[in-house]
Amino acid sequence: MKWRQQQVALPSLNTRLLPAHLSASPRSPVRGTKMSSVQEVNPVVLGIREPVGLQSLAGEQKPFQTVIDVCSGDPHRAGMPPLSFARQVLAACLYPELLDESRFPSDVCRRAQKLLGVCNGGSVGAYSSSSCGIPGIQKAVAEFITRRDGGVASDPEDIIFSSGSQRTLMLVLHLLSSGQGPTQTGVLTPLPCPHTLPMLLDEVGVKRVPYRLLEEQGWGLDLEELHRALEAARGHCEARAIYISNPGNPTGQVQDLETIEGVIRFAASEGLVLLVEEVYQDCVFGQDEKFLSYKKVLSEMGASYSERVEMVSFHSISAGTMGECGLRGGYMEVINMDPLVKNHLMSMQAPCSPPVLPQLALEIMVNPPSPGDASHEVFTQEILQTVETLSQNAQRACEFLNNVPGMSCQPAKGGIFLYPRLNLPVQIIKEAEVMQADVLYCQKFLEEEGVCLGPGSENGQDDKNYHIRSGQIILDSPPAVLEDVLKRLRSFHLRIEDRRH
Amino acid sequence: MKWRQQQVALPSLNTRLLPAHLSASPRSPVRGTKMSSVQEVNPVVLGIREPVGLQSLAGEQKPFQTVIDVCSGDPHRAGMPPLSFARQVLAACLYPELLDESRFPSDVCRRAQKLLGVCNGGSVGAYSSSSCGIPGIQKAVAEFITRRDGGVASDPEDIIFSSGSQRTLMLVLHLLSSGQGPTQTGVLTPLPCPHTLPMLLDEVGVKRVPYRLLEEQGWGLDLEELHRALEAARGHCEARAIYISNPGNPTGQVQDLETIEGVIRFAASEGLVLLVEEVYQDCVFGQDEKFLSYKKVLSEMGASYSERVEMVSFHSISAGTMGECGLRGGYMEVINMDPLVKNHLMSMQAPCSPPVLPQLALEIMVNPPSPGDASHEVFTQEILQTVETLSQNAQRACEFLNNVPGMSCQPAKGGIFLYPRLNLPVQIIKEAEVMQADVLYCQKFLEEEGVCLGPGSENGQDDKNYHIRSGQIILDSPPAVLEDVLKRLRSFHLRIEDRRH
Repeated sequence: MKWRQQQVALPSLNTRLLPAHLSASPRSPVRGTKMSSVQEVNPVVLGIREPVGLQSLAGEQKPFQTVIDVCSGDPHRAGMPPLSFARQVLAACLYPELLDESRFPSDVCRRAQKLLGVCNGGSVGAYSSSSCGIPGIQKAVAEFITRRDGGVASDPEDIIFSSGSQRTLMLVLHLLSSGQGPTQTGVLTPLPCPHTLPMLLDEVGVKRVPYRLLEEQGWGLDLEELHRALEAARGHCEARAIYISNPGNPTGQVQDLETIEGVIRFAASEGLVLLVEEVYQDCVFGQDEKFLSYKKVLSEMGASYSERVEMVSFHSISAGTMGECGLRGGYMEVINMDPLVKNHLMSMQAPCSPPVLPQLALEIMVNPPSPGDASHEVFTQEILQTVETLSQNAQRACEFLNNVPGMSCQPAKGGIFLYPRLNLPVQIIKEAEVMQADVLYCQKFLEEEGVCLGPGSENGQDDKNYHIRSGQIILDSPPAVLEDVLKRLRSFHLRIEDRRH
Repeated sequence: MKWRQQQVALPSLNTRLLPAHLSASPRSPVRGTKMSSVQEVNPVVLGIREPVGLQSLAGEQKPFQTVIDVCSGDPHRAGMPPLSFARQVLAACLYPELLDESRFPSDVCRRAQKLLGVCNGGSVGAYSSSSCGIPGIQKAVAEFITRRDGGVASDPEDIIFSSGSQRTLMLVLHLLSSGQGPTQTGVLTPLPCPHTLPMLLDEVGVKRVPYRLLEEQGWGLDLEELHRALEAARGHCEARAIYISNPGNPTGQVQDLETIEGVIRFAASEGLVLLVEEVYQDCVFGQDEKFLSYKKVLSEMGASYSERVEMVSFHSISAGTMGECGLRGGYMEVINMDPLVKNHLMSMQAPCSPPVLPQLALEIMVNPPSPGDASHEVFTQEILQTVETLSQNAQRACEFLNNVPGMSCQPAKGGIFLYPRLNLPVQIIKEAEVMQADVLYCQKFLEEEGVCLGPGSENGQDDKNYHIRSGQIILDSPPAVLEDVLKRLRSFHLRIEDRRH
């Protein structure tokens, strides 16, 4: 498959297509509406965070031809081609008649037949037989984890599938959520955190307990800061878990052995459940960096840790080199969770059976073609191209941004985001008034240059250290698109800088 | 595609594959577990209903060769072939290279290109642009509803997509859920109700307010019974909505104009939100019966109703002639809902983007090939075959069951279930002790004859009128499988009857 250039044509510039923080319709509280007068709306739902609204773009004459959305982590939207092997196998599973035509390489046919064999009734159209996922897929994932971690055992029954890592995380948070006021569940979350996390915590009714990452140290995690954050939360909520993103979203930081051990010791001593988002585990490109799973580190810290610390690790087909966001699939591995609690976690999924095709995609992600298989060479080439593009774009963009006055950027060593810092003129901060200055910045950038960036306030940042989040299209896009976006950003930023004088 | 015979080979008789009520691992409360000692488990989660446990089947010598699962509504598992047009279009969307090969009929290629055109980045691998679904699909669904209802307008912005009708229903229930004790939200639900409903209500923390359907009148809905149920609920909970299943799951009943008007008047006068599950709308086969949508009836009752009654109608790609349960897709149309409440409903979906492929399947479901299109004839034949099989099997099974002593069965006029009544000997009721006698009956039937039936208690039935639920495989299966299941059921039931003496 070929690289495509993702550009939204202007006539389709519908504000409904824009990210929430840039959309035209601010969401207001429900009080006084008809439904709430007939019956009260669930107060938990009412607590859902309101993204900042923005005036509509539609109808105006614009100085650009196309809008480029840079704020999300959506590789295929950014033009990254899907993995041919994965799409061929899935197409054959959907329409098995294709298998009779020697249309596909032999390993595609073998894989499709194997996968159809684990589906109920041999069809992707039948319900999964378990609310955790198809047993054959759980087994494949457990075997992958064992291989990845150099032999550390993984139990297929600890693998719980759901429609994406957001959904699996939501299930766990829902389980942990309890109390009100000082007894309300809190979760330690990095600052900055993934931009989807604050909304998710709000929806489940869990309080965010932010711990700051050290920007000047490449967004490294500081153990003393964890203690400070926990201490600061006392009396305001009851911290029950700590959330980790490694490789970091949106920071691109990759944690080393020492940090991971420190976090595990902290979680153990404070009795916190470890929620570890490891969705970019196959996307580490920094020199001398490699991905270390929390599970592997935990397993090597002795029984007093490895048999005691409760941990949930999240992975997804949306992230990294697979990048199948639209299919919606992910799994969590639950470690040291009481079997009865785990049963409850499973029963929470029970009324809604998980989709089948993304489970098959997950099997393909954890079981790529082997050397000697017909698809191996093409597959390897496609993966290499993606990681190379990521790595080169990350380096190029970081260098470029560090040369723009009023901007600085820590290098990304993994993941798909860059998270540069803005030193904004006081004039623009004043102009922003009620809205965050980074939101105003992103709004103006979209209006003037047609590029959607994510404001750092969506990543939880609430101080005067403004940041912007640039996702997949920066790192996964063809170099020409990258250069175009960078040029527009510099030109826009220099105009903002000019207002300083 | 050809009919397949769905039979689970004995070696794979893993109790994890069996439905919850027949599985080997009873779920126990979490109290006293490690997680709950470290932090309390969310009490709402703890309230989730516990399916009745059963001893394991594994390892024993069985008198049958294969296990047939008859309790669920899963057409493809039952061997019903998928619609070729749908699968061809979806396969081509997954792997667009297939479009270059004139492998598929011309309308398949046109449709695939059209559908890829509404996907972000032209790829099914990109996130949906809205948490409600892809705008182009919302529009297609609204146009379908308008056609179906003879011109009654439908607004694309009222169409909210999610992973199946269970998930959409859950969103609405979550919105309605509030209060505790006498102020806890209650929903009027039919007795019997869909077997997935009680678990879903429990999970969301909503109380069931059952209204009995009239079995002797073909499971018809009785308006006086609605008033009685509502009256009985006063002081125990606050009824805020009424749930309707039409065509009825598991009853097979199809509501007439008079009934629907009555329900709408009742909902209006009592200020209840109407939650109408209409997933079997294309599966009506009873003579002189036809599907009438609540929306159409509402629209013809004058502005005092049509502009006032709050209604949500649910539809799904899992049900009826499409039967794509494994893909997980459905939509709801929200009618007369305050725009601000609707915004909240949408924002509840926001952290988890909906999957793309099932949305494309939904578009195909509401837009089948037209006369003159290359796929029209095959498509029409496939639909006809499914509806004919359903109709013939429903008639045959009903006649058969009514001739078994101690059994009676109302004829199904739509949907995919039969729901026969059992007159059980007192001996078996005594033997059941703590478990419901219908559960024991289903357990024994599985052990002795290798067929999974659903006990009526899962459908909410809690009295001594025992029932069993037989789903898709009875109605959607090849006639030979049907005869086999019926023979096993009669032979088993006669043995149960013998214990009467």
